[in-house]
Amino acid sequence: MGMRRGTNLPRMGDFNQSVILEAIRRSGEGLSRIELVEATGLSAQTITNITRRLLDEGLIAEAGRTINGPGKPRVTLRLVAESRFSVGVHLDPAVITFVLLNMTGEAVGRRVVRTQDRDPSAIVETMAKTIEILIDEAGIDRNLVAGVGVAAPGPLDAAKGTVIDPPKLDGWHRVPLRSVLAEATGFEVTLEKDTTAAAVGELWTGDATSEGSFLFVYLGTGLGAAAARDGGVVAGSTHNFGEIGHIMVDPEGPPCACGSRGCVEVVCTPQAIVEQAEAAGVFDDEPQGGGANEVDERFLRLCERASAGELPALGVLRRSAGHLAVLISVLTNVLDVDRVVLGGPFWGPLSDVYLREIPEPLHRRSATRAVRTLTVDGAVVGDDVGAVGAACVVLDAVLTPRASDLYLED
Amino acid sequence: MGMRRGTNLPRMGDFNQSVILEAIRRSGEGLSRIELVEATGLSAQTITNITRRLLDEGLIAEAGRTINGPGKPRVTLRLVAESRFSVGVHLDPAVITFVLLNMTGEAVGRRVVRTQDRDPSAIVETMAKTIEILIDEAGIDRNLVAGVGVAAPGPLDAAKGTVIDPPKLDGWHRVPLRSVLAEATGFEVTLEKDTTAAAVGELWTGDATSEGSFLFVYLGTGLGAAAARDGGVVAGSTHNFGEIGHIMVDPEGPPCACGSRGCVEVVCTPQAIVEQAEAAGVFDDEPQGGGANEVDERFLRLCERASAGELPALGVLRRSAGHLAVLISVLTNVLDVDRVVLGGPFWGPLSDVYLREIPEPLHRRSATRAVRTLTVDGAVVGDDVGAVGAACVVLDAVLTPRASDLYLED
Repeated sequence: MGMRRGTNLPRMGDFNQSVILEAIRRSGEGLSRIELVEATGLSAQTITNITRRLLDEGLIAEAGRTINGPGKPRVTLRLVAESRFSVGVHLDPAVITFVLLNMTGEAVGRRVVRTQDRDPSAIVETMAKTIEILIDEAGIDRNLVAGVGVAAPGPLDAAKGTVIDPPKLDGWHRVPLRSVLAEATGFEVTLEKDTTAAAVGELWTGDATSEGSFLFVYLGTGLGAAAARDGGVVAGSTHNFGEIGHIMVDPEGPPCACGSRGCVEVVCTPQAIVEQAEAAGVFDDEPQGGGANEVDERFLRLCERASAGELPALGVLRRSAGHLAVLISVLTNVLDVDRVVLGGPFWGPLSDVYLREIPEPLHRRSATRAVRTLTVDGAVVGDDVGAVGAACVVLDAVLTPRASDLYLED
Repeated sequence: MGMRRGTNLPRMGDFNQSVILEAIRRSGEGLSRIELVEATGLSAQTITNITRRLLDEGLIAEAGRTINGPGKPRVTLRLVAESRFSVGVHLDPAVITFVLLNMTGEAVGRRVVRTQDRDPSAIVETMAKTIEILIDEAGIDRNLVAGVGVAAPGPLDAAKGTVIDPPKLDGWHRVPLRSVLAEATGFEVTLEKDTTAAAVGELWTGDATSEGSFLFVYLGTGLGAAAARDGGVVAGSTHNFGEIGHIMVDPEGPPCACGSRGCVEVVCTPQAIVEQAEAAGVFDDEPQGGGANEVDERFLRLCERASAGELPALGVLRRSAGHLAVLISVLTNVLDVDRVVLGGPFWGPLSDVYLREIPEPLHRRSATRAVRTLTVDGAVVGDDVGAVGAACVVLDAVLTPRASDLYLED
């Protein structure tokens, strides 16, 4: 085991500063110094010293006074939303989504660009240009942008900042996305798995109900998982936590390239569900091919038909909810989390059927059904969860207290 | 998200004290104050103050002086092994194992008691008596025993300190083991899942090579998993991390009570492997029934025959290694850990075949094979890993620095 390092006063000060910033951010309406004492457990003197520093740096501002009986009025301290920004980029086989967030996590800019049939250098150029446009349109000072977060399909080589072999992006073998985008933009770039970024976004923008631990299941072109506990997302030792493509969910399912059958990758993806719908005769026309846009279009048609009450379509989605319940039970039984959150670009149209169909089989399969019932919710952040999450990864590094920041460096 | 609490000087002092104690413990030979400055990053003044307190409490002692050129000789500080003890108890369907560990994690006492056909209150009485005998035999002061750790099969109701429905222990429905054993012994009792305890034992007694994260797969009457990262074992939100019984590993496997087929519980347990051996004609005699001792005996015979090179026996173990490789790949792909450690009471006789057969299919199925090769090792602690681990859970609470200890209380 690596030796633990001690801590000292400057480290403690930085940590407490993050604790105070987080308390103010999460309060929404702002907090007085006395409320900060209650919320953080820190002494009044520490609160006074640290809030003075944060006021000097422009990260917080005094926002009104409240008079509560006799004595000095309380000054409310609020986060200055426009004091810092971050850019989030989500690289997906079909589209690249860009968002610009302010310090409160609010999107002050958004752009979507199609990615079909483009090589890596063209895509990086498009990214750099779009980021510039986003910042220009928002009319903000470039120096206030803390960095660019990129969410990409895993697995990643996080040490090198490369995307290894993203599905359906030909020519993307081991592209050193972090360094080339940093060079093209001049910003510091953070690369994270799309699923991990999405969970950071959920944790960051979620309200107080996100207390405790949760499993995030990301429904994109592929499926991925992430887990949050103790207020942070588990990235894994190589930032590749949550690769779930070859978990078996249907022993009667189709064979998989891995040698098994009925894996998530051949049963639960939008493409697999579209193929199940085709086999069940849901569509009137012939399959159009497996391109990302074709799959998207047919997948949405399937969901619309299910919503309209067409039984073959509904049957396909119900069976697919059953498969997802098996997957989720495997993950929650292993990870022992309190809640399940479902999100990602394909979540929206599935949400009605899945929220109705998943809880019962999940509870039946839960190893902890004797001690609790797992709740299943849709993500707070919508379709842009990958991009918003990537931007939150950057804000998170600025704002969230992390106990590991307390350790003295080697 | 729960609001983070700040930290302050007394908290920081306690944390740094644990950091110093851990550094001294892990050094084995002891460390001088100057070496402690290097190891922990703390100032010489802090090291002097904290080591004075530890000397006063008798937890460390001065153990010789080293003269290194001119200047003052360096005084080596060592852990006082006999300054504290802890008891570990492993409740298993076949046997209860008891160990008494000193502060260095060394066993200074051990006892094994058969558990067949006993009701909960008789077993608790046996436990309490055996713990007294263990302490008496070792001739140590009862007041130096920091507590009793109990490892039991999951799932547990950790909040209530109860074992819910341990396999093959009739009458053990929701037994409040923690409180009844505390009452019977007068000691503070900690209840932990056997698999989690085993991983704590591995982390605690393992050498420096256990740096980074690992997956621990526990091969007992049932199979369980645990994971360690950042120097600690992940317990899960209800202390039920690592329930893996219904992960599918063989789509052609036998049906399972859960409705699927080929789950770990019906494919990978010693009982399932013995049944596969029976079906393959490995044994000359008829099955004897499914009692824990009968399964143990036939399982050992299977392993002996495989070691002797008998092909039917070897074939059964090779196929079973393949199934375990599927399970391990599911877990390592989800958890993104650096290493795999296999242990538990059934590990020893399987180790030769499994260490030879598992790495190749595991690598082939690894989502991160492009960035690393997972290593597979046997546990450092042997058959007693559950009991040793349970005792380490108690020592761990005394000795291991935990960043969460820094937070101020609500």
